[in-house]
Amino acid sequence: MNFCSHCGQPVRFDIPEMDNRPRYLCDQCGTIHYQNPRLITGTLPVAPDGRILLCKRAIEPRLGYWTLPAGFMENGETTVEGALRETVEESCVDGRNPTLLSMISLPEFDQVHVFYRVDMPNYEFDTTPESSVVDLFEAGDIPWEEIAFRTVSATLRHFLEHIEADPVPVLNTAVFRHRR
Amino acid sequence: MNFCSHCGQPVRFDIPEMDNRPRYLCDQCGTIHYQNPRLITGTLPVAPDGRILLCKRAIEPRLGYWTLPAGFMENGETTVEGALRETVEESCVDGRNPTLLSMISLPEFDQVHVFYRVDMPNYEFDTTPESSVVDLFEAGDIPWEEIAFRTVSATLRHFLEHIEADPVPVLNTAVFRHRR
Ligand SMILES: [Zn+2]
Ligand SMILES: [Zn+2]
Repeated sequence: MNFCSHCGQPVRFDIPEMDNRPRYLCDQCGTIHYQNPRLITGTLPVAPDGRILLCKRAIEPRLGYWTLPAGFMENGETTVEGALRETVEESCVDGRNPTLLSMISLPEFDQVHVFYRVDMPNYEFDTTPESSVVDLFEAGDIPWEEIAFRTVSATLRHFLEHIEADPVPVLNTAVFRHRR
Repeated sequence: MNFCSHCGQPVRFDIPEMDNRPRYLCDQCGTIHYQNPRLITGTLPVAPDGRILLCKRAIEPRLGYWTLPAGFMENGETTVEGALRETVEESCVDGRNPTLLSMISLPEFDQVHVFYRVDMPNYEFDTTPESSVVDLFEAGDIPWEEIAFRTVSATLRHFLEHIEADPVPVLNTAVFRHRR
């Protein structure tokens, strides 16, 4: 951030009064520009026969790796609405009965990833501009070495470990680039 | 948003190519300024005798109403770290053993509120610049008519309804200003 988005003057990076961490400050109009983590919402779609849907990424980052449908939550929607919207956008799947599966922090990326288990009402899915291949996998056939993100592999593992549980416990953890 | 925070030129609000919703766009440097929901993290602190800690708000909004300690999650922290930090900042309580209690979307406010149940290791708590009174309440004495936010009352109710459950199920819902 170089300029104030409100008045257009240059900002400085400093600790405001009554605060304890540096923010982008505008001396011209007084605005403090807070920056906060962003939410990624997505789903783990389960087909009527129990197979799991994965998408091969058609875009960077991690182009060519497999992932669950997910993306940035938008203003004006709920976490469930964001997860279902991304599922349509990335796999053309109409997810049903969302149940919360995981909430995983990535503090080094300023992100929180939230995944829901959803039922697929049928076998309808398709590729999209973001997914070059969309396919269903038996638990034993998941390409663990080619999963795009650690939040996705953690969510898949958690789902498989609790596949009989009702309600499914929610995985709440954090992923770090290097172990702390 | 009036100006590009990267280059300082005026922005326009329009739908970018390959997108389906309007964003603030800079024609000068090409930056698309995405705006996303913010996370509020907090706790429901439980004293050794089972009483619940509440804070009377010393600041707007909802000055004078009771709330759970909570605030905006910061970049570089996990949801748990944010919740525990806010608990110290608002009540001087050193929360232990955080377990996820609720994740509630407020789509009209572009927020998601996340609360953890935490154990208080002792009876140490204090007022802060954000809390004019901090006190412990029996379940039967919670001032339901003076609770600051609906996400707080929903989280309190959920906790009391599942006080015997292990693990406690996670409340995942949304709050709307007007019923949809
Ligand atoms: Zn300014
Ligand atoms: Zn610009």
